[in-house]
Amino acid sequence: MSFPDRVTIREVGPREGFQFEKAVIPTDIKVELIEALAQTGVTDIEVASFVRPDVVPQMADAEALADRLQMHEGVTYTGTYLNLRGMQRASQTGKLRVKHGLTISASEAFSIRNQRANHEQAYVELSKRADVFSEWGVSAVTLGVAAAFGCNFEGDIQLSSVLGWIRRLEELALSKGLGVEEIRLLDTMGWANPRQVAESVDAIRDRWPELAISLHLHDTRGLGLANAYAALSLGVDDFDTAVGGLGGCPFAGHQGAAGNIATEDFVLLCQEMGIETGVDLDAMIECALMAETIVGHPLPGKVKSGGNLGSYRQRSDL
Amino acid sequence: MSFPDRVTIREVGPREGFQFEKAVIPTDIKVELIEALAQTGVTDIEVASFVRPDVVPQMADAEALADRLQMHEGVTYTGTYLNLRGMQRASQTGKLRVKHGLTISASEAFSIRNQRANHEQAYVELSKRADVFSEWGVSAVTLGVAAAFGCNFEGDIQLSSVLGWIRRLEELALSKGLGVEEIRLLDTMGWANPRQVAESVDAIRDRWPELAISLHLHDTRGLGLANAYAALSLGVDDFDTAVGGLGGCPFAGHQGAAGNIATEDFVLLCQEMGIETGVDLDAMIECALMAETIVGHPLPGKVKSGGNLGSYRQRSDL
Repeated sequence: MSFPDRVTIREVGPREGFQFEKAVIPTDIKVELIEALAQTGVTDIEVASFVRPDVVPQMADAEALADRLQMHEGVTYTGTYLNLRGMQRASQTGKLRVKHGLTISASEAFSIRNQRANHEQAYVELSKRADVFSEWGVSAVTLGVAAAFGCNFEGDIQLSSVLGWIRRLEELALSKGLGVEEIRLLDTMGWANPRQVAESVDAIRDRWPELAISLHLHDTRGLGLANAYAALSLGVDDFDTAVGGLGGCPFAGHQGAAGNIATEDFVLLCQEMGIETGVDLDAMIECALMAETIVGHPLPGKVKSGGNLGSYRQRSDL
Repeated sequence: MSFPDRVTIREVGPREGFQFEKAVIPTDIKVELIEALAQTGVTDIEVASFVRPDVVPQMADAEALADRLQMHEGVTYTGTYLNLRGMQRASQTGKLRVKHGLTISASEAFSIRNQRANHEQAYVELSKRADVFSEWGVSAVTLGVAAAFGCNFEGDIQLSSVLGWIRRLEELALSKGLGVEEIRLLDTMGWANPRQVAESVDAIRDRWPELAISLHLHDTRGLGLANAYAALSLGVDDFDTAVGGLGGCPFAGHQGAAGNIATEDFVLLCQEMGIETGVDLDAMIECALMAETIVGHPLPGKVKSGGNLGSYRQRSDL
């Protein structure tokens, strides 16, 4: 066990959550939630995905949203994207952090559905993207593998395949003069179990001991926080989470229960184990209740009904 | 890490779940669910609590229910109770396993609410109960501590207090000529976190290396399966779970999200990590959907919507 003292939480609810809702959430309402999230102490909020508006109409307001965001000291707003065109759109807003990532799906079937690109096409796109990073003078990038623990279309994904992709992406980055600072694993379809997470983290640490690891976990089958705990116990300190347990990829073939691990539940997990998150849990619970009102259906996060134990401890009647 | 090869699951949904529902579930319907559960491979089903019908009307049919149960090879039906009178009622059915347990609540405030007994009164009752076990010729008992990880009425519960209660209960058992075979910790109000679970298991192992440990976990704050994983990774192999995530104690002051860890989610956790449960996950998911229909509101288990990965792997189109 080597728990970190502190973790970084990337709040992805406004992007991943609202992309997955059937209804298009009005820009005003998105801004309101993001504004509330910015007051919780969370330092990075992923606000929009710059993808084709005809394919993902929920994200058609990405530029308009960026334009309306109030900036706050210590809070970064991030824009994500799937291809060069989207990356340029995110960059042109001038207000968003554009991720410097080279991410590929370990599952080709999912890549075709999500990015309309087979492995070869996806690799060619990443190669062009790496050229742009070089032009921009980016010093180091994140290497990401989506569907890294299993796939609704391909079944099991072998760890050796994940490691193989990381090696190929590393070679690509180095060949373009880019350093590597982080490896990122995405459990896009909620296939991971905690033993597998621990084995994957161990294997990456073994090969790339100097690199940070970040995780993007879904709670599709109830194992999300167990997976997070397994990673925390090995010192992983960088996680994507979504307020209320919002989230899901529209092209991932989810039957239901698509959401990311709920931010407030993850904050409670850390808080109870003495790991600093910088997030005010009561404020985050308020955001989760707000998110639930916005989407108009129950969200899976538990602490918003179960209650913050930290607040319980401070009750005068205890 | 020292995962067990196999775990024992005690299905407590029909007892703990139906006691917590506002509506009284008709005996017929309970029998139908229990019958379906008996077909899943689960070997122990807790079917009723023998408590005062005026206080818990949901359990008023305990004898009638026991009378109607069909017995199946390899399946044990268990009755639970809070006091001698209840224990005798459960025993008189002649069909139920009556737990041989000496259980006390680490929180006196909860003991008063749940059993109408302060610590002294509860201890006196356990002493009389131990006498009955002696008369019955019981060879070994389980020592249990409820509210072992925290309490909605008293706040934090110290591990030293839990260990102190186990020692006192052990002395009581030995003084009555009873052996001890198991220590049982109950997270009655969902206060546990996985680090605390691991520390508690370690401390008990240290002091009582020869005794089995069993856990009763609630998922009130989303940490239920992370807690189960922490215990599994230390070799704990005996868990209470409730189909669909039913459950909750009517006197525990739950704000919501009261349920036990969901049987089907726990089975998935084990299955994915290569730990044998003996339970057919698809059959258990059917039971969870049935339980959801019976109670008439969504139940928190995830796998019933997220899907059994084992079945995914067998799909011909993968």
